[in-house]
Amino acid sequence: MRLAVVGTGLIGASVGLAAKRSGATVVGFDEDRATAEVARERQAVDEVAETLGDALRDAELAIVAVPVSQLAGRVRAVLEASGDGVTVTDVGSTKAAVCAAAGGSPRFIGGHPVCGSEARGPEHASADLFEGATWFLAPLPQTDPERHRLVHGFVAGLGATPVAIDPTAHDRLVALTSHLPHVLANVLVNQAGSTRIDGHEPLSSAGGSLRDMTRVAGANPRIWVDIFLDNAEALRAALGEHRRGLEQVEAALESEDAGFLARWIGEAALNRRGMISEAYGDPGRLHRLRIHVPDRPGVLAGITQGLGAERINIEDFELQHVSPERGGTLSVLVAGEDEAARAAALLEAQGYGVVVSPVVEE
Amino acid sequence: MRLAVVGTGLIGASVGLAAKRSGATVVGFDEDRATAEVARERQAVDEVAETLGDALRDAELAIVAVPVSQLAGRVRAVLEASGDGVTVTDVGSTKAAVCAAAGGSPRFIGGHPVCGSEARGPEHASADLFEGATWFLAPLPQTDPERHRLVHGFVAGLGATPVAIDPTAHDRLVALTSHLPHVLANVLVNQAGSTRIDGHEPLSSAGGSLRDMTRVAGANPRIWVDIFLDNAEALRAALGEHRRGLEQVEAALESEDAGFLARWIGEAALNRRGMISEAYGDPGRLHRLRIHVPDRPGVLAGITQGLGAERINIEDFELQHVSPERGGTLSVLVAGEDEAARAAALLEAQGYGVVVSPVVEE
Repeated sequence: MRLAVVGTGLIGASVGLAAKRSGATVVGFDEDRATAEVARERQAVDEVAETLGDALRDAELAIVAVPVSQLAGRVRAVLEASGDGVTVTDVGSTKAAVCAAAGGSPRFIGGHPVCGSEARGPEHASADLFEGATWFLAPLPQTDPERHRLVHGFVAGLGATPVAIDPTAHDRLVALTSHLPHVLANVLVNQAGSTRIDGHEPLSSAGGSLRDMTRVAGANPRIWVDIFLDNAEALRAALGEHRRGLEQVEAALESEDAGFLARWIGEAALNRRGMISEAYGDPGRLHRLRIHVPDRPGVLAGITQGLGAERINIEDFELQHVSPERGGTLSVLVAGEDEAARAAALLEAQGYGVVVSPVVEE
Repeated sequence: MRLAVVGTGLIGASVGLAAKRSGATVVGFDEDRATAEVARERQAVDEVAETLGDALRDAELAIVAVPVSQLAGRVRAVLEASGDGVTVTDVGSTKAAVCAAAGGSPRFIGGHPVCGSEARGPEHASADLFEGATWFLAPLPQTDPERHRLVHGFVAGLGATPVAIDPTAHDRLVALTSHLPHVLANVLVNQAGSTRIDGHEPLSSAGGSLRDMTRVAGANPRIWVDIFLDNAEALRAALGEHRRGLEQVEAALESEDAGFLARWIGEAALNRRGMISEAYGDPGRLHRLRIHVPDRPGVLAGITQGLGAERINIEDFELQHVSPERGGTLSVLVAGEDEAARAAALLEAQGYGVVVSPVVEE
């Protein structure tokens, strides 16, 4: 397979590395020649093309991996500069605009690998970036089914799981699952950060919930401003609905409606249970062990080694720092009450105090 | 020291266990006799008192550890049933109401250990529950400074860090750092859970941001309805401010105000940086390694052992499951670019693909 990567930043170069691992020949092109050269040095592309046309000549598949703001124009250019032999896809975080820009070409199918975007540039590229990731594929009504199959097989070969979706539905979906959470995280961290309460800074006394909920705050503005603007309509709808949800809670607080609050929390518990069952199977079996650990090398090794030696499978494992002086809190999820008791006994024998609790209440 | 624990559920029994470890004699009392007996079986209390008066006789310190809805009444009862020798504190999640109920008694100081409350009942009690936790102490204007010092020393002896705060300021602070995040998590998970988009369930395709942000959703309604109602005023103020923050973002999306969005994200990045510097020191040095791992015992042990053997200190460590078939994503934080490169090389030598990126951008 001969692959053209148009835009050799983090994602493009990672596609190149992963495709080369499966034996593809990869030609790279980037408006910024230096970026393309770094991708070649990283061996993410076999050769760097001088022009877009050179990159596309003889390619079987072209992947457009440029920022969201340039996506529509670049996809149009690639379709115009390439012949019938070239299937074209992209890796943008939104799909409606780019799919519209493809103008009903049977050679185009939209794509979106759901993977972290904290890093930038080909120097951070990795052949493993897509392992286990969902890769949305958004065909046009006109997309040739053969080409859909080609891209489906290609992304599966990179280690990702392809999921077909309508372009507009995709954008409404990610508005809810990704863009809305990012907005809430930003608003929340700015609200906490701009408030002083009687000399106390809320961010300094942030507990686990505030830290969890602001983890994606402040994500790269060069990427996110474009994503927010490109998906403004779906995101505004999600934000409006969210505000109405908050107003309901405010009204229940004002009227001291304990019944509403209890039902609302119960619904949240069910929804959360449904969500985590996707990841773990039966969430009713999950137990959390909470362990206070000092801040020094080797502590986690001792714990994971002990559990591994006993063949106790760790479902989730999280260390959250409190401070260099106060160490951190380790949270370990295991499946089954007996397994949890075995794990706790083992850690207590190592001298740790352990707090065990079920993850969801029955 | 002779301690009376009034309410021997999870927190009360954990206080008992921790205090006994430091040599205290602990008398327990609970309206529900069976709960008190379980606490005794767990050796969280040395003896179970028949009446509140019996529990308080000869006690130096009384800790009231009952649900928020019963807190004010129980603190009043304890103050009435005890003499001048007994200092009284509590462990409730809100402080204004209970401090008002203490009626200016110099013997009372409010308290709030910030620790997880997922589990319930003395059977889940642990002497280590308070290790490394912040423990707010909210004195009344009338609180005797000697008694403040007594309680300060007592909670420090349990492993917690005492932080003094005005009762009303406390409630505004936790409204922002804990109660608001809980409301947002519930609203978000219910919004995503009640939406179907073209056959796709948003919760099934939840990425990291949605999962992080709904981790505290659906927390025990028996505890949280009371907390929300007790702190309704401060929480409504925080929710109103949050809604105004969302409206600003919606307006910026409508007017395509890229400048506003970029400044707003930049502010969020600064605030987040400030928050994580509390936990880690200089966040600019932090690097994240992202590793895709299979779902089987021993994998984490191999990784932590390798890093521990090289004396690479793990600042944060998180495994998030994708599914039993697709394994999970491991995120490891280490301080220093060189340290990150060493860790990545080591894991790559073990056969893992590693994606390295700085945690905050310079």
